[in-house]
Amino acid sequence: MYRIGIDLGGTNIAAGIVNEEGKIVIQGSTPTLATRPFEEVIADMGKLVNDLLAKYGITADDVISIGIGSPGAVLNGYVIFSNNLNWKHVPLCDELRKYIDVPVYADNDANVAALAESTCGACKGYKNSVTVTLGTGIGGGIVINDKLYGGSHGVGAEIGHMAIKFDGIRCTCGGIGCWERYGSATALIREGKLGMARDSQSMIYTLAQGDENKVTAKVVIDAAKAGDKTACEIFDEYVKNIVVGLINLVNIFDPDVIAIGGGVAAAGDFLLDAVRECYEENIFYKDIPHAKIVFAEMGNDAGIVGAAMLS
Amino acid sequence: MYRIGIDLGGTNIAAGIVNEEGKIVIQGSTPTLATRPFEEVIADMGKLVNDLLAKYGITADDVISIGIGSPGAVLNGYVIFSNNLNWKHVPLCDELRKYIDVPVYADNDANVAALAESTCGACKGYKNSVTVTLGTGIGGGIVINDKLYGGSHGVGAEIGHMAIKFDGIRCTCGGIGCWERYGSATALIREGKLGMARDSQSMIYTLAQGDENKVTAKVVIDAAKAGDKTACEIFDEYVKNIVVGLINLVNIFDPDVIAIGGGVAAAGDFLLDAVRECYEENIFYKDIPHAKIVFAEMGNDAGIVGAAMLS
Repeated sequence: MYRIGIDLGGTNIAAGIVNEEGKIVIQGSTPTLATRPFEEVIADMGKLVNDLLAKYGITADDVISIGIGSPGAVLNGYVIFSNNLNWKHVPLCDELRKYIDVPVYADNDANVAALAESTCGACKGYKNSVTVTLGTGIGGGIVINDKLYGGSHGVGAEIGHMAIKFDGIRCTCGGIGCWERYGSATALIREGKLGMARDSQSMIYTLAQGDENKVTAKVVIDAAKAGDKTACEIFDEYVKNIVVGLINLVNIFDPDVIAIGGGVAAAGDFLLDAVRECYEENIFYKDIPHAKIVFAEMGNDAGIVGAAMLS
Repeated sequence: MYRIGIDLGGTNIAAGIVNEEGKIVIQGSTPTLATRPFEEVIADMGKLVNDLLAKYGITADDVISIGIGSPGAVLNGYVIFSNNLNWKHVPLCDELRKYIDVPVYADNDANVAALAESTCGACKGYKNSVTVTLGTGIGGGIVINDKLYGGSHGVGAEIGHMAIKFDGIRCTCGGIGCWERYGSATALIREGKLGMARDSQSMIYTLAQGDENKVTAKVVIDAAKAGDKTACEIFDEYVKNIVVGLINLVNIFDPDVIAIGGGVAAAGDFLLDAVRECYEENIFYKDIPHAKIVFAEMGNDAGIVGAAMLS
């Protein structure tokens, strides 16, 4: 038997057939064209799924369920609200069932990625885990007792909008001092630009050829790896900011494991070692076993595999 | 049938027999004398329970279970660690079963209070709730899908130690800028003292007779209620600080309801109205239903009733 996972994005809809080992056996995609009526978007989603089934040579009878990861607030099969798709109260699951007679589940895309880590990735074998995605913002998903926890109204696990400095930087959400203002790739890039501006001798300046637009997370981290003083200062602050949020999650959830994913994780052990060192130094209950910090493992497959695991 | 709840404190052990409606039908207490070997403390706990049963005229056969709320980290029937009791890895449940042959459960005291609100109090009828206790510190308990969530190692729900200002005030836990440094009664008193020191015209000064030791949460709140400018400024800041943490909890848990308890709640609607107004102004997803903010209802019964509800 198979499960189908659909990763509904603002630009593309990706779908895959997932086998019992949690591996994608075939996948495909189609443009979302999100400005269309939602019925058309979901009709294309149905066509994509049926095409994949035909291509792989199986039918709906071979499929246990379909899961969809969608941006925004998702609850009871509805996309309650999504900025990216410009959807409100869209009956996503019911609509898709018009095209294929299989149980359909939906959840938020960051939650779905956490489920992927929990069932098949870095958090496999642990009952309680949090997956943190350090990207443009900070996304998160929470798994409690092996089940995804998305809150009562479908807007939980917005861990990037946990305020860690209530008199800090204004966030895109309207709040102040949200974690993602300090721990996301965007925050690292912002500080990298400021560092380059105040220190033209910095390797950040060299690597970015003095062009603010060429300052990426990788540039700052590469300069820090090479021991550049300004970059190291920025990196050390950045690591501290990540750890403030991680320790908050530990004090709140006390999970078995926290998995870190997202673009910044490409920095590899250089980042992970620094985060772990700072975390162990600052954790509250040092003498009691506490959450391990690991990297997420599912990468690009997280969206499809996690969606497929919804139930 | 009945359940027994035990509230194990650093000073006293309180126990009660709770009926099927969640009401305490008889209760009693005995000094903890926590410096003794734990076996003696738990022997007295057993005696207290058996005395209550005899006094009420029932036997162990009439009792479904015993629950114990203990300070510190509690996991799988053990008190892993408690500063208040100076206990480490104490097999609390097994030890108590030597005195009465009934299933025994244990959890952290703040968690147990949240369970009381969830089963019999302000959060009754809601699947997901957080109970926040604003006292000397900020305690918390989390109920998810009608079950207490205490974390993987028994140290979850330490919501008072969620950093809300990472460059803020050093906390007793060793962390920096913990919520309880800003939202507890202790924080309000600290600011009240500072307010009195800088404004001897303030009503805080009058009510406390210029004596720093007489500045209580009630003094500051009474002065604010009367419209005193300095007190109002302090109160408004304090409300904002409470709300920063509440909104973090909403962004993380998206619960049905958050119940506020603890000494500060005695301020009544004056506090609750101010908190709600600030909360509604600052909540992220304004258009989507979100957690109600209410006062906790169980008061002094929370410890016994919540413990009795453990399973």
